[in-house]
Amino acid sequence: LDLASIRKEVDDVLEGFLGDLDRARETRSLAEVLRDFIAAGGKRIRPLLCMLGWHAAGGSGDATAALRLAASLELFHASVLIHDDIIDDSPVRRGRPAAHRVLAGRGPAGSDRRFGTSAAILLGNLTLAWSGQLMWTAPVTDRQLRAVLPVLDHMRRDVNVGQYLDLLASGQPSGDLDGALAIVRYKTARYTVERPLQAGAALAGAEPEVLRACSDFGVPLGEAFQLRDDLLGVFGDPARTGKSVLGDLREGKHTPLMAVALRRATPAQRAALRDRVGNPGLDEADAAAVRSVLVATGAVAAVEQMIGERHASAVTALDGAPFCAEAAAALRTLADIAVRRTS
Amino acid sequence: LDLASIRKEVDDVLEGFLGDLDRARETRSLAEVLRDFIAAGGKRIRPLLCMLGWHAAGGSGDATAALRLAASLELFHASVLIHDDIIDDSPVRRGRPAAHRVLAGRGPAGSDRRFGTSAAILLGNLTLAWSGQLMWTAPVTDRQLRAVLPVLDHMRRDVNVGQYLDLLASGQPSGDLDGALAIVRYKTARYTVERPLQAGAALAGAEPEVLRACSDFGVPLGEAFQLRDDLLGVFGDPARTGKSVLGDLREGKHTPLMAVALRRATPAQRAALRDRVGNPGLDEADAAAVRSVLVATGAVAAVEQMIGERHASAVTALDGAPFCAEAAAALRTLADIAVRRTS
Repeated sequence: LDLASIRKEVDDVLEGFLGDLDRARETRSLAEVLRDFIAAGGKRIRPLLCMLGWHAAGGSGDATAALRLAASLELFHASVLIHDDIIDDSPVRRGRPAAHRVLAGRGPAGSDRRFGTSAAILLGNLTLAWSGQLMWTAPVTDRQLRAVLPVLDHMRRDVNVGQYLDLLASGQPSGDLDGALAIVRYKTARYTVERPLQAGAALAGAEPEVLRACSDFGVPLGEAFQLRDDLLGVFGDPARTGKSVLGDLREGKHTPLMAVALRRATPAQRAALRDRVGNPGLDEADAAAVRSVLVATGAVAAVEQMIGERHASAVTALDGAPFCAEAAAALRTLADIAVRRTS
Repeated sequence: LDLASIRKEVDDVLEGFLGDLDRARETRSLAEVLRDFIAAGGKRIRPLLCMLGWHAAGGSGDATAALRLAASLELFHASVLIHDDIIDDSPVRRGRPAAHRVLAGRGPAGSDRRFGTSAAILLGNLTLAWSGQLMWTAPVTDRQLRAVLPVLDHMRRDVNVGQYLDLLASGQPSGDLDGALAIVRYKTARYTVERPLQAGAALAGAEPEVLRACSDFGVPLGEAFQLRDDLLGVFGDPARTGKSVLGDLREGKHTPLMAVALRRATPAQRAALRDRVGNPGLDEADAAAVRSVLVATGAVAAVEQMIGERHASAVTALDGAPFCAEAAAALRTLADIAVRRTS
């Protein structure tokens, strides 16, 4: 199971499907924006996990349906990101202007921010519809359809709940570590890792204990993945991550990293954080000051430890999982990449 | 087939489902906003058409699955309206503050417009997920599921395409009648009438000729419905319609009504329209001036005639349709209401 070649197969499905959308004149311009968005990159983590879930549960032979399901998860994710960038007012995604910024330049009356936001809400919705279309038109049996639908259904709810909790907490980071971890659980652990794995496994006809093993491995790994993401969002190299290191801080994202720092901070350190985090005018110097507090309080080290613990717990779950051996090995590789990555 | 009692049954399903959502602590506050939104009114035209489509195609006996499908269309529509009100920046829906305005008052930091918009994007997405959940968990056979999915899939695409065409044309009404009618076809004829009818019919196991008859009746009726809506949007009684008569004009909505008026206008009348329509500052006096041009050019009379022609064509299609007689009679009643309504 070679991750790079699975990725290539998923991308081929996406390219074929998005290419066909050009035939509908009314949506050609929106489909074009989506194609550029997909082509600009992304880790394809959900499609890869879906394919590994399918193999783990014994899926083999013709992978057409599994690849379509995997590709549909990437379109679903694109719809989430397009809306998310509106919500966060992020100018950049994958090193290029975010969809609402691209669309702002395509309004009938020239550059128009409101048009961009509105068109991006619709593009997100249409992308979700296309994601469904890619899935429902896959060659699946009734039994497969019945098994996959509830997983996708949970996935849809998990991500929106996570985003809502995130939104409620944004702008006023606090020491509420449990609250910060709940956001991580919904937005990433379930949505990004557990559900994609389960979707692929369900397609392969997984028994309940296989679906449970997907959770036991996926939830801690997903938490570790997001904790790494939070560190990269503040300490990462924008040239590698494709996003500014000021965004999360300006937004005042309520992360476990920030919660731990606020809990451990001296009054002066706490004031240094509160004065800057969540301020849309935060600059490079402010970010540097915040970073030094995050390091000095030991919050960075604590989060690194949380990542290590969760990675270990995922690997332990994998050792006991009733997965096909080859898929388990690939999942371990993926777990290592997810946790150690720099982009 | 009594429309009022069908409506009551659909509302009972909605109430039961939305009541159950309260059990999930994380989404309780969003579910509450949705319940108020649904309880505030709405014509339930899509659920009614879905139930009539089911009966028309011979559906009978236990209506549980049909009612859940019908109710899921109303939730789907709520998700569309919640996003639509963000796009149009409409302050009012069904005589109450629009969802993004309600949510703006529920942010963590007090009244916050950006929070309201973001939370409403997520509420729309979550409502769509709930709509799917209501449908997938209905007691349907595999064959029913397979028949209904492609119809819902088309419905999702139709409404987003229609809204995008609408958005592209808004703010600069023109004499392009074909363009205005294309918006009407996607947004209303297909999304509001044809697809809900077909969804119900598909659930009942409709043969292709029954699905075609749904289109032959539904598309002209849907166009008539929207043309009536456009007239009510400018000439209606806000106390009855629940929405301001300034909204469509301020937005510069590209309607067939406006297209006909611009085609027939004298230079002075055209200037009177162009100076006012699409101006966010348009006031009651401006609206009165626009209304008098719409009447004087004969555009109102022309649109009334278009409504009459389409109503007649829908009724003719109904006469030849292979529908169960009782459902056909109810569809005729509904067609009359849709076209003659004042709210």
